[in-house]
Amino acid sequence: MIIVMKQNSSEEQVGEVISLIEKLGYKAHLSRGVERTIIGVIGHKDKSAIQSFASLDSVESVIPILKPFKIASREMHLEPTVVDVGGVKIGGERITVIAGPCSVESEEQIVRIAHAVKDAGAQMLRGGAYKPRTSPYAFQGLEEEGLKYLARAKKETGLKIVTEIVAIGDTDVLVKYVDMIQIGARNCQNFALLKAVGQSGMPVILKRGMATTIKEFIQAAEYILSEGNPNVVLCERGVRTFEDSTRNTLDLSAVALIKEWSHLPVIVDPSHGTGVRELVTPMSRAAIAAGADGLIIEVHDHPEEAFSDGPQSLKPDQFRECLKEMAKIAAAMGRTV
Amino acid sequence: MIIVMKQNSSEEQVGEVISLIEKLGYKAHLSRGVERTIIGVIGHKDKSAIQSFASLDSVESVIPILKPFKIASREMHLEPTVVDVGGVKIGGERITVIAGPCSVESEEQIVRIAHAVKDAGAQMLRGGAYKPRTSPYAFQGLEEEGLKYLARAKKETGLKIVTEIVAIGDTDVLVKYVDMIQIGARNCQNFALLKAVGQSGMPVILKRGMATTIKEFIQAAEYILSEGNPNVVLCERGVRTFEDSTRNTLDLSAVALIKEWSHLPVIVDPSHGTGVRELVTPMSRAAIAAGADGLIIEVHDHPEEAFSDGPQSLKPDQFRECLKEMAKIAAAMGRTV
Amino acid sequence: MIIVMKQNSSEEQVGEVISLIEKLGYKAHLSRGVERTIIGVIGHKDKSAIQSFASLDSVESVIPILKPFKIASREMHLEPTVVDVGGVKIGGERITVIAGPCSVESEEQIVRIAHAVKDAGAQMLRGGAYKPRTSPYAFQGLEEEGLKYLARAKKETGLKIVTEIVAIGDTDVLVKYVDMIQIGARNCQNFALLKAVGQSGMPVILKRGMATTIKEFIQAAEYILSEGNPNVVLCERGVRTFEDSTRNTLDLSAVALIKEWSHLPVIVDPSHGTGVRELVTPMSRAAIAAGADGLIIEVHDHPEEAFSDGPQSLKPDQFRECLKEMAKIAAAMGRTV
Amino acid sequence: MIIVMKQNSSEEQVGEVISLIEKLGYKAHLSRGVERTIIGVIGHKDKSAIQSFASLDSVESVIPILKPFKIASREMHLEPTVVDVGGVKIGGERITVIAGPCSVESEEQIVRIAHAVKDAGAQMLRGGAYKPRTSPYAFQGLEEEGLKYLARAKKETGLKIVTEIVAIGDTDVLVKYVDMIQIGARNCQNFALLKAVGQSGMPVILKRGMATTIKEFIQAAEYILSEGNPNVVLCERGVRTFEDSTRNTLDLSAVALIKEWSHLPVIVDPSHGTGVRELVTPMSRAAIAAGADGLIIEVHDHPEEAFSDGPQSLKPDQFRECLKEMAKIAAAMGRTV
Repeated sequence: MIIVMKQNSSEEQVGEVISLIEKLGYKAHLSRGVERTIIGVIGHKDKSAIQSFASLDSVESVIPILKPFKIASREMHLEPTVVDVGGVKIGGERITVIAGPCSVESEEQIVRIAHAVKDAGAQMLRGGAYKPRTSPYAFQGLEEEGLKYLARAKKETGLKIVTEIVAIGDTDVLVKYVDMIQIGARNCQNFALLKAVGQSGMPVILKRGMATTIKEFIQAAEYILSEGNPNVVLCERGVRTFEDSTRNTLDLSAVALIKEWSHLPVIVDPSHGTGVRELVTPMSRAAIAAGADGLIIEVHDHPEEAFSDGPQSLKPDQFRECLKEMAKIAAAMGRTV
Repeated sequence: MIIVMKQNSSEEQVGEVISLIEKLGYKAHLSRGVERTIIGVIGHKDKSAIQSFASLDSVESVIPILKPFKIASREMHLEPTVVDVGGVKIGGERITVIAGPCSVESEEQIVRIAHAVKDAGAQMLRGGAYKPRTSPYAFQGLEEEGLKYLARAKKETGLKIVTEIVAIGDTDVLVKYVDMIQIGARNCQNFALLKAVGQSGMPVILKRGMATTIKEFIQAAEYILSEGNPNVVLCERGVRTFEDSTRNTLDLSAVALIKEWSHLPVIVDPSHGTGVRELVTPMSRAAIAAGADGLIIEVHDHPEEAFSDGPQSLKPDQFRECLKEMAKIAAAMGRTV
Repeated sequence: MIIVMKQNSSEEQVGEVISLIEKLGYKAHLSRGVERTIIGVIGHKDKSAIQSFASLDSVESVIPILKPFKIASREMHLEPTVVDVGGVKIGGERITVIAGPCSVESEEQIVRIAHAVKDAGAQMLRGGAYKPRTSPYAFQGLEEEGLKYLARAKKETGLKIVTEIVAIGDTDVLVKYVDMIQIGARNCQNFALLKAVGQSGMPVILKRGMATTIKEFIQAAEYILSEGNPNVVLCERGVRTFEDSTRNTLDLSAVALIKEWSHLPVIVDPSHGTGVRELVTPMSRAAIAAGADGLIIEVHDHPEEAFSDGPQSLKPDQFRECLKEMAKIAAAMGRTV
Repeated sequence: MIIVMKQNSSEEQVGEVISLIEKLGYKAHLSRGVERTIIGVIGHKDKSAIQSFASLDSVESVIPILKPFKIASREMHLEPTVVDVGGVKIGGERITVIAGPCSVESEEQIVRIAHAVKDAGAQMLRGGAYKPRTSPYAFQGLEEEGLKYLARAKKETGLKIVTEIVAIGDTDVLVKYVDMIQIGARNCQNFALLKAVGQSGMPVILKRGMATTIKEFIQAAEYILSEGNPNVVLCERGVRTFEDSTRNTLDLSAVALIKEWSHLPVIVDPSHGTGVRELVTPMSRAAIAAGADGLIIEVHDHPEEAFSDGPQSLKPDQFRECLKEMAKIAAAMGRTV
């Protein structure tokens, strides 16, 4: 932390800040410039309490200089992490492809689509049984019944299953049916849920919140990691901006930047990230070229009848084509799909 | 809903869309323009399923024409709602002032500040016992111990208490100690929590999410209302933008627009909304002038030692001045503080 | 400027940075922390060249500590500036009200509306003769003919005239007809235009760009001031965000913050700032309560036939009511309208 | 255009709207729903005037249904446009690579870097002679002297030259020295400049504004096209968001979407788009995978001494590596670099 004093702060005020720093167990390091005096705060302990020094009348600002995450940091863990989901590896040489409908709508529907995405080349099946919907009057999901259908689809196809959790208490039931838990964008900073999922030990996909910065996103992962669960996969799925021709603005720079800063695997959701079917394939290619370790793509065989997210879902034949294009880019990157 | 067909859609494709509309139980109304054919969807039922028609190859877009909320709507409830919190009315002629520290730090601290804000003119006390913090290593709150201290502060001062809930299971313990529950910005679209708080029947302050549109914000309230809990107060607290000199961008237009669209009371949090102590008083005045029914303001008597949010907290004497200025604007609006 | 070295930078690298600093004529001040070494750059000269040090392999980041404006700064000019527009003072005790249509459509129209806004209490008339329109096919303004109509309206009513400039070469013709020049949001960082208007010496309203931070906005004003033109009025008119129920997000915190940092007058445009007629009056009240020195409001007597911006224009009787409400808030602030 | 009437609009009000529509020369088409009446506006003429109908008391909203551009539209021009810059083709099978420093700093510097980027494989040289800088006190460019140095670099290397225009009157001098004009992000909606560049007939790179939507961006291109200049290349360079770890948020979905909607070539600027040197190569790869026709990349051989944008500039050897990686992705896309 660096403390910038106001232009005309007195000797006495500078002394007061130094005393406060030392009282908290840090060392102070004074530096006088032509227009401003700055004070460095030196020490090993967490320095978040120093932030409040900005409320002293003599202080202009308090500037952090370290990145705010630890276990997730590449500095602490040089090797990239590979998360193992029942044998499917996320973060290794192979690009992981997760596909399926937005919502589980019936047993017949999820089993049928599971076969379709498996045939096209997916390794994991997605499908929502608990749906976080903007309106309380929209379809809220089949709940445990939906989980059973997912388990059936797994049994028939061998695909590993990932599904979204929306309430803390649901970890127990999810563990029984699925291989991996997804935390959705609206719950990215639901810290109670992050802790619960951390304690479950289950592999987890953490989606970036719509207004979550990259640093905050990694700190959210840190909540899960610090509960002792290392199996975290980060998912870029677009952020909210003024742009209104796409559902969100997919931030592929975040993929490359997280790979610089963290050892955790990163996947991309081009379906929510764009909200436009025609953009799913180009953005899947771009995600791999940016360094993503996987894709999670919405696929539905009758999107016009989907209970949710029809317009952004690929049809199975479009998904098959998408995978072919992804494979070319993966090869150019020295990876496989 | 209005369905816009693509430029060169065929008669057959138009017929197909009309069949799908009728299959779902609505009536279709066809309108042919020079460059586009549009089809209106007519009927009483919820039309969210129609959104998926956008995934038909022949359809260019699907445009909703109704506002997406019901119980919260002014069309359904012409009179403004007044929420009663143990005798303190929010939404009436008097501007409600809620004040206190970001976090409950000790019994002594919360009781001392409670007296200070009561003396200055506040009607309710705020203070966090369960803290949603960006970093898992930052202070997470005193939990139930903090609730007991809040209850003590209430007993000594008579101030009604509002505190934040972060986990579904905590409604039971909160009910024992506090008068009103706050749902924070990061949980604005934590629908499981909204339902739980809806079922509790407790008065609730719902804060706007950092990337939540006004329509989505009112729909979030609709989750609580539709569980049978009418005691919802909306709180504008700023949204995330590119502006980096303030912590958030306080959107006072949202206050005026919600008052147009909804009967629910609206309050403003200028502390989180700006993150800058010097802006709290001007924005409190502006909030009242925009039509807000109340303010929630962070006050701390030693902000430089606060566990959180020191830089945006008013000191008690600044808060007293702020209330005086608010009183003048309230009088100009025909209200009192 | 503060230079933060990377975690494992060597003695040699630190020495290299210090040499570079000294080579540019500054003094370096070294501070070693537990995890990072930082180097302060001390000296009177402009330090923007130091920013490039961030490209050294050994440097983690370069952090500025001073505000990036000078002449506009309150530190340099303690007294608030009052801009005199042919006798109308902006920035004094009286709130300046500027009103009129978005576009000058005909001589009859602008004279008629000029009388209407004058009768209601406006001191200045606005109206666009050169229109910056998103589409090249939309009405582009009457150009010099429109300026003549504005001059006619001035002659008949005595209202001072402000109109928008869109091209550098137009200062000469504008000077002949109008009292004040407006630089629109899309040209806020058109630096060539800022310099030209600076050289003209004319009073100027500078509107904030849709993605311009408060600091950048004041720096844009600095371009005009540094050409020797002190007659700058800043205008907050909303910024672009994800919110789609209002045309822009009006940032009233910017008003209060600019008043803290700068001596320049600040006015607010609630018409473009909200894009919603029903919000113009509440936001006008709120602007005054936030400390604004004036308002610029779109008024049209037949908004449904306006060539542009009809939906956000007040009708003359609504404008009259708006002024009455503004007067009450102004009185509460110790000012007049 | 579709006009949505308010819930309880009367027969008379509906009739009034229909008369107004017919008075302007369009046909009205009435459609009555259960909760709302809507009126379609049918006709060939530009319908922007209809927007003002939203200001009628009986009208809830006016919704456009057509995309707001014509000449730029793929519907009007099925084949992709290839822009020829003195023999260098932008928009064809080969990915165009433009590289060079942010600013021309001296003759020696620009000639030296020109050789370096040519050797690495670039086809065009960039370099600013007129610099739009946020602060009036920062380096503003060498102006015509800088253009002469660029011409010298062209003569020595054969690279085609692109440089930024900042003022209308400069087209004449630019034409003498350079092959292509760039309009920067801050001037994306400087319509006077767009028209002037349109009239010049010169090949032009139009950069997206920081808060310009994709539709507005294409409309800005339409200003140039409608002056009779078909040689327009669009450049995605990131938009402004809340994210603060990158300088802008690079929106690669925009590349893919513009290729769907328009026949114009699209290039990407990963240097300004990220502001972080480490992200330039991954985003260059991703841009090609998203379908971009070219890249414009900042390269400097002594970035720590650059007058501007050092931290985001590649060094020549990094640029050479970047091109190698780009070549692999281009090959996977069936293109060359």
